[in-house]
Amino acid sequence: MDFSQLLEKRRSIRRFLDKDVSLELVMEIIQDACMAPSAVNGQPWEFIVIRNRPLIKRLSDESKANLIAEIEKNPDCPAVKYESILRDADFNVFYNAPCLVLIAGPRDLHSLEVDCALAACYFMLSAAERGLGTCWIGLGAYISDPILIDAIGLPDSSAIVAPVILGYPETVPPVPARNLPKILKVVS
Amino acid sequence: MDFSQLLEKRRSIRRFLDKDVSLELVMEIIQDACMAPSAVNGQPWEFIVIRNRPLIKRLSDESKANLIAEIEKNPDCPAVKYESILRDADFNVFYNAPCLVLIAGPRDLHSLEVDCALAACYFMLSAAERGLGTCWIGLGAYISDPILIDAIGLPDSSAIVAPVILGYPETVPPVPARNLPKILKVVS
Repeated sequence: MDFSQLLEKRRSIRRFLDKDVSLELVMEIIQDACMAPSAVNGQPWEFIVIRNRPLIKRLSDESKANLIAEIEKNPDCPAVKYESILRDADFNVFYNAPCLVLIAGPRDLHSLEVDCALAACYFMLSAAERGLGTCWIGLGAYISDPILIDAIGLPDSSAIVAPVILGYPETVPPVPARNLPKILKVVS
Repeated sequence: MDFSQLLEKRRSIRRFLDKDVSLELVMEIIQDACMAPSAVNGQPWEFIVIRNRPLIKRLSDESKANLIAEIEKNPDCPAVKYESILRDADFNVFYNAPCLVLIAGPRDLHSLEVDCALAACYFMLSAAERGLGTCWIGLGAYISDPILIDAIGLPDSSAIVAPVILGYPETVPPVPARNLPKILKVVS
């Protein structure tokens, strides 16, 4: 598979086969993620691997509850456009995926969001290259219950940037039409 | 070239051959960048392509001056560790690259940093796949002079997230040793 084929194969996947992803494979993908560039080569990324569906479901419920509380406090927050699905008790923000990898890092690091996004990008491409599907779940990062924080081993000093679900896709949908690139200016 | 070879070939490049990159090639790489995932498929990225070395040098001088002003105002800011190179008149933050692509987007968008980081990741991999070298220049985003803002066509509503230099590498250095992945916890 060459790079242009890989770009077409990397789709956001939200429907998975009922098949676990081996820990060995997850670790290979994490190794690839660590090849990403980072600000001053800081490699600040940290990984939490969760292959336990009941725990993934609890994390979904926690993130939904925290987002709903945020919406009730601040009706202008970005999460408000998801309010109806967040209030749907049957909706699992992690789409019942068999594996969830949380990419995190030191919360005080200036470049943390960007560094972890680069690692997540490599992670998603590496997974696609191996026939796996992923989706970055922005709604899944809102974990604050101390019991759950302890269950996932997240230190106080770290923040979750990229929750990425991982599994074998039911199907890989075709690439939808993309917007044309928005070129603001060319100066030659 | 398969994906693992591509991961080894994508190095941060700071020394370039004196050879221009064709606009056609830059546009192909931007097309690939637009295949990146983004929050709710917003594709908010905007691109400014600068193949004019005197303008790139002016942008370098502007960004350096703004960072030095920031350091003088706030000696605890993250840029302080670059103070000596920023005060070096001969240092071009863009390493005299023949081409600079600024990846920007709506400054009020919650997910802007992450969305543009994903596009930059795809951009850097696509360039490597084509034998080109890139480096994300975090120090190059601090452009505020209205004359320069106008020269690069950046609207008031947009912010620069990822300045990426592009050119033909003098050499592609071997992959330096990476840190071992930091796995905080595995829950199976």
